[in-house]
Amino acid sequence: MSGTFKGKPTSRRAFLRGGVAAAAGAVAAGAAQAATPDPLITEVQDWAISLGDGVDATPYGLPIEYEADVVRRNVPWLTADPISSINFTPIHALDGTITPQGCAFERHHSGAIDLKKEDYRLMINGLVDTPLVFTYEDLERFPRENHVYFCECAANTGMEWAGAQLNGAQFTHGMIHNMEYTGVSLRTLLEEAGLDAAGDLKDKWVYVEGADASSNGRSIPMAKALGDCLVAFKANGEALRKEHGYPVRLVVPGWEGNMWVKWLRRIEVTDAAVESREETSKYTDTLEDGTSRKWTWVMDAKSVITSPSPQSPIKHGKGPLVITGLAWSGHGAITRVDVSKDGGKTWETARLAKPGEAKALTRFYLDTTWDGEEMLLQSRAMDETGYIQPTKAQLREVRGLNSVYHNNCIQTWWVRPNGEAENVEVS
Amino acid sequence: MSGTFKGKPTSRRAFLRGGVAAAAGAVAAGAAQAATPDPLITEVQDWAISLGDGVDATPYGLPIEYEADVVRRNVPWLTADPISSINFTPIHALDGTITPQGCAFERHHSGAIDLKKEDYRLMINGLVDTPLVFTYEDLERFPRENHVYFCECAANTGMEWAGAQLNGAQFTHGMIHNMEYTGVSLRTLLEEAGLDAAGDLKDKWVYVEGADASSNGRSIPMAKALGDCLVAFKANGEALRKEHGYPVRLVVPGWEGNMWVKWLRRIEVTDAAVESREETSKYTDTLEDGTSRKWTWVMDAKSVITSPSPQSPIKHGKGPLVITGLAWSGHGAITRVDVSKDGGKTWETARLAKPGEAKALTRFYLDTTWDGEEMLLQSRAMDETGYIQPTKAQLREVRGLNSVYHNNCIQTWWVRPNGEAENVEVS
Repeated sequence: MSGTFKGKPTSRRAFLRGGVAAAAGAVAAGAAQAATPDPLITEVQDWAISLGDGVDATPYGLPIEYEADVVRRNVPWLTADPISSINFTPIHALDGTITPQGCAFERHHSGAIDLKKEDYRLMINGLVDTPLVFTYEDLERFPRENHVYFCECAANTGMEWAGAQLNGAQFTHGMIHNMEYTGVSLRTLLEEAGLDAAGDLKDKWVYVEGADASSNGRSIPMAKALGDCLVAFKANGEALRKEHGYPVRLVVPGWEGNMWVKWLRRIEVTDAAVESREETSKYTDTLEDGTSRKWTWVMDAKSVITSPSPQSPIKHGKGPLVITGLAWSGHGAITRVDVSKDGGKTWETARLAKPGEAKALTRFYLDTTWDGEEMLLQSRAMDETGYIQPTKAQLREVRGLNSVYHNNCIQTWWVRPNGEAENVEVS
Repeated sequence: MSGTFKGKPTSRRAFLRGGVAAAAGAVAAGAAQAATPDPLITEVQDWAISLGDGVDATPYGLPIEYEADVVRRNVPWLTADPISSINFTPIHALDGTITPQGCAFERHHSGAIDLKKEDYRLMINGLVDTPLVFTYEDLERFPRENHVYFCECAANTGMEWAGAQLNGAQFTHGMIHNMEYTGVSLRTLLEEAGLDAAGDLKDKWVYVEGADASSNGRSIPMAKALGDCLVAFKANGEALRKEHGYPVRLVVPGWEGNMWVKWLRRIEVTDAAVESREETSKYTDTLEDGTSRKWTWVMDAKSVITSPSPQSPIKHGKGPLVITGLAWSGHGAITRVDVSKDGGKTWETARLAKPGEAKALTRFYLDTTWDGEEMLLQSRAMDETGYIQPTKAQLREVRGLNSVYHNNCIQTWWVRPNGEAENVEVS
C-alpha cells in the first residue's frame, strides 16, 4: 500500500538524500565532510549513560510533558459557562483512528456527574411486558459486543455556516471522537423486558434519558433501537471515563452525539416521539424560510484534513509532504476520499489506511510533493451509499444560513508558502 | 450474534425476572408490593439536581477515582529493582481489545528515558548504499500505515512453568498490550538507504538498538524487516507515551516484545546475526538437556480467561454468567477459542467478538449459565495455521522445566462455589 508515489517513485529518496535526512557517513566522519557534525550522533548523550524511570513510576500513565499541547480545549466565548458547554478533540495532532478517552471531546448540558457503579440503576418501562430495573452488575450478565464507532456532535462545524471563523481543525471539526465500545445490545435489554405489550413495533419509539440534571431526553425510533444501539460500559477497553458517562452510556452508531445519552438511567417504550426540548428547539435545522427540519439524526458523510492545518503547519519546506485527515459517515463505510490543492478545481484520490469500517473514523493519506507554493487544501468524502460530501455553496443552497447543526460541507485550508495555514472560504 | 443462549433462549430473561433485575413496577409502587423499594429509583438523587464538572475541568482526563484499582502493577520480588523490571496490564478488569496506553504493561532494561522529538535521530547504516540519519520530522514525510497489533513479552506467563504461582490474570498473562500503531514501514526506510550494497538479501539481517543505556540490541532477519515491521510514532492515535518509547519505537508484529525496540536509534544492515546478550543469554529457551532453543521469535497461539479469574471473582451467584477472555497468535488470526469448565474434559466453543484480526488481541465470550458448583475454567485458542494451544503437560513434555520464556500453555482457574477463583494446575 505504501512506498511508491504516484509517478514519482524516487522523489522522497532523491529529496532526502539531497538535504533533509543527512548522509550518516558524512556526519560520523566529521570535519572532513561538507555536512556539519551532529552532536546528537557524534557525542554520547545523557540518556544513553543514565537510568530512566522504573516500572513503579506511573501505575496509570499520562502523555509525556512535551505533548502538553495535545489536549481538549474549550472556547470560552462559545457558551455562557463551562458547565453547559463543549470542548474539542485535538484532531490536528492525532493520527490513526482511535481517540484516547483522555482527549476525546466532551459535551455536557449540566456538567459531568459523579455516579458510582453501585448507585447505578437503569429502568426500562412504558409499553413493555414487564418494566425492569437493572443494576450495573445485571448488565454485565448479558452477552456483550465490541464495535468501533465515531460519535460526532450535531453542532460540529456549526460555527462555519456563516463563513470561516474558528482557526484550526480542532475547533472546526473537533467535536468528534472514535472509540471501541463494549456493551450490551439495546435490543437484548428491550427483549428482556418484552415488547409484546407494545403491539406493532413499526411506529413505536424509545425515549432515553440520563441521570444528570439535564436528563437530555431523546426519542429514538424503534427500528434504530432494535438495530445497532449499544448500552455501553467500556470504551477503548477500560471503563468509560466520568466525562463520557461512567458507568453506562448509550451508543447510537452513526447518529448525532446528543442521542448518545450519558449516565443512561431510563428507556421508555412509547407510541410516539416525546418531542423533547433536545429534539425541537435544539438539534433541528432552521431553513431559509423559517421552518425547521427535524429528525435529522444521521451524520452525513464528512471529512477534514487534519495536517497540514492551521494548528499543524508545514515546517519542513517544499518536497515530500504527507497530507492526512479523517473521513466518516453515519450511513456506513467511507469508500473514497479525494484531496484538492487548488480549492476544488482538481482532485487526487487519497489512500485509505483501513477501508470498510462502517460508522467509524477512516484515516486517509495523500503522499505527495509540495512545490512550496500556496495551496487551497480540501478533502471530499464519499460513502458506500454513493453520497458525496457537498461544498459549502451546495449546502447553503439547500439549507440557507440559519442552521447551526449538521454542517458537513467541504472545509478549506489556505496554506501559504511559509507553510502556515488558515481557515478560509472559497467561492 | 447475541440475544440467544445455546439451547436456553429464555434463561437470562426468566432468571432476571425471578430476582436479579427488579420488576420496576413493583419497586415504584412501593410498600404495597413484595419488593423492597429501592431509594435509588424512588428518591431524587443529588446528581439529578446539581451541576457536574465543566468542560474545562480536565484538558487531559484520567479514569474516575472508583477505577483506581485498574492500573499497571509490578511485583517487587520478581526483579532486583524497578528500573530493569516489568509491570502488568490489568487485563482482568479490561474488556474489548484495545489497551489504553496509560495501563499498558512496561518492560525496561535501564528505565524509561526522556527523549525530546527535536533530540531524536535514527541512523540506518551497515550494508546500505547510503547510510542515513533521520530526524523525527524526516520520518513524518514518509507514507504512514495504521495497524492494531498485540505486543507480548516473551516472559509473559514465565513464572508458571514450574506450577501455579501468581494469583491473577494480570500477573500470569498481563505482559501484553494491544494498540493501534501509526508509523512508517521499516521497508520504506531501508529502501530509502538502498539495499543494493547488501547483495543477496536472503541471508541478511538488521540489528536494531534503542537510545537508552541498555540499548537492547536485537537481530532481525531481513525477511521480517522487509515484511510488516513499522517504525511507529503514535499508539491509539496519540504520541507514544514516554514508557512506550517516545518518540519512536519499532513494531515487530507477532514477535516477542523484546524486539520492539523503544527509543529506536539505529538500524544496521548486517550479513549475520549479532548474537547479542538479548538473544543468547536472554530470550532463549533452555531445554531439559541443557541446550537452548534460539530465534524463537514468534509468539505462538495463546489465550486466557480474564473474567472470572482470581482478581475478577463471580459476585452474583448462580445463573447467567459471561465468561470472557483474550486470545492471540503471532502467526495470524485466531479462528476459534474453546472454553472448558471441567479442567479440559469437555469444551464449548466461545463467540469471537471480531474474528480475523491478525496478530492482534481477539476478545472471546462464552454466554453461559452457572450452576453454582465449582469450575476448573480453561480456554484453548486455535489460529489460522491450524495450531492448537497446548496443555502445560504437553509443553513440558517438549521443553522440560528449565524455560522462562515462551510459555503459551492452557491456564486453569479454579472457581469455587462462593465465586472466588484461584490459579491452579490440573494434571
